[in-house]
Amino acid sequence: MRIGIVAPSTPILAETATRTSQIAARGFPGVELVFHPQCFLTHRHFAGEDRVRADAFVEVANDPGFDALWFARGGYGSCRIVEAVIGRLGPAARDKAYLGYSDAGYMLAGLYRAGFKRVAHGPMPQDARRRGGEAAVRRALGWLAAGDPAALEPSLAEGPAAAFNITVFSQLLGTALEPDLAGHVLMLEDVSEHMYRTDRALFHITGNASVRRVAGIRLGRCSEVPENDPDFGASEEEVFLYWCERSGIPYLGRADIGHDSANKVVPFGRR
Amino acid sequence: MRIGIVAPSTPILAETATRTSQIAARGFPGVELVFHPQCFLTHRHFAGEDRVRADAFVEVANDPGFDALWFARGGYGSCRIVEAVIGRLGPAARDKAYLGYSDAGYMLAGLYRAGFKRVAHGPMPQDARRRGGEAAVRRALGWLAAGDPAALEPSLAEGPAAAFNITVFSQLLGTALEPDLAGHVLMLEDVSEHMYRTDRALFHITGNASVRRVAGIRLGRCSEVPENDPDFGASEEEVFLYWCERSGIPYLGRADIGHDSANKVVPFGRR
Repeated sequence: MRIGIVAPSTPILAETATRTSQIAARGFPGVELVFHPQCFLTHRHFAGEDRVRADAFVEVANDPGFDALWFARGGYGSCRIVEAVIGRLGPAARDKAYLGYSDAGYMLAGLYRAGFKRVAHGPMPQDARRRGGEAAVRRALGWLAAGDPAALEPSLAEGPAAAFNITVFSQLLGTALEPDLAGHVLMLEDVSEHMYRTDRALFHITGNASVRRVAGIRLGRCSEVPENDPDFGASEEEVFLYWCERSGIPYLGRADIGHDSANKVVPFGRR
Repeated sequence: MRIGIVAPSTPILAETATRTSQIAARGFPGVELVFHPQCFLTHRHFAGEDRVRADAFVEVANDPGFDALWFARGGYGSCRIVEAVIGRLGPAARDKAYLGYSDAGYMLAGLYRAGFKRVAHGPMPQDARRRGGEAAVRRALGWLAAGDPAALEPSLAEGPAAAFNITVFSQLLGTALEPDLAGHVLMLEDVSEHMYRTDRALFHITGNASVRRVAGIRLGRCSEVPENDPDFGASEEEVFLYWCERSGIPYLGRADIGHDSANKVVPFGRR
């Protein structure tokens, strides 16, 4: 199978692509990874100008020669191009699997809303740089290449699910990218956010009527939380319990996702 | 007149109250400032527990002996108590003026949505600590005590207006606090946010259908923007121009508001 890799947010280094390709070659000899040259471009904060990032995404998504589109990494920037991209996607794009997380969540949301069936939250090539990152890359490839059940977040049997970064999800509510998650288990994770920001985002998320129709919320990992002065005085699980109780959304426990090498795959919708 | 001061978010120091009272005594001999003791409490991140902050707000708002309720400062925390507070407000609360900004925006939004007529974005006692802060405090008191037109943001003749911190406004969209701002000029300012976060918040704000019904957006000051690595490569005005153009919301220019001593008063709704 052939997997096309693009970077709708920020760029990766050539070295990261090499490392990811080496991991794939060792464990998945039938898989060909094709890093689009756009992955390595830089324009201000982004992996190339909006138009260039959108063109690369559309090129790979619409190419029937690729079985999957893999997001190179997160960062920031995909929200600027999702609507333009989705309007240009053809039938070959609907057959593909899409895998990424963090800032890629804007694109996953828009694709899922547009009825794409194979959209998933999970590891990306940039994760090859993490300690233990080879396991993350192998997990992603195991799911992309063969739907490996060992790659999946373990609670998925509960019903349809979706997973997002807390901040990203908060910042797409009410926009043209917000998918209908009624009846879904919503899994949320974050990185590098002060706990008061997470509390504030949960006020926003659980305060939206559309979100109150989810089946429940599961909390992934909140890592690298900067110190608060004074200490916020509540853990991320206490924050989630508080807002779930206030809003009447069932809190279903932890989810095995996060900005780390253990991040499991969460396909959107029914398994 | 008597002005009651409460802190629905984070606490102030006694010294700040003293400094503010001295400014008032020098310039406004007919004004009595009453700092509720709750202003000086600390509980974790907040100026007392949620219940204690809510009780203080309700006590002052419902007391016909006060002509105005002044927010002591911003920070974080008012979103946790707005709904509980508004449900407990009686007729005396509806006669009062309310003045604050930053995190107080959650409360201003909820009060305006609930039909309160004298809700305004403007300086707070905590501003007495700023360089040039005496002018900010005098401006606030000039508006609270006498509706001084010199205190007002200069573009208000354009029509009904409302003003918010960018992040706070983004984080109340779709919640029970979001006011109907159709036909209003929406003024937005922020402090200490990376430019990529401001860009992301503008995607969210201008992407909401309810916001697209405003008459236009004015940009206040974005101060103390942390350095981005790499540089974001666009100023706050370029970010606003981009998202306003994309969403079809008229960009009306700058607003004279911000986290600084020059922050002018913006009464919500028609003048």
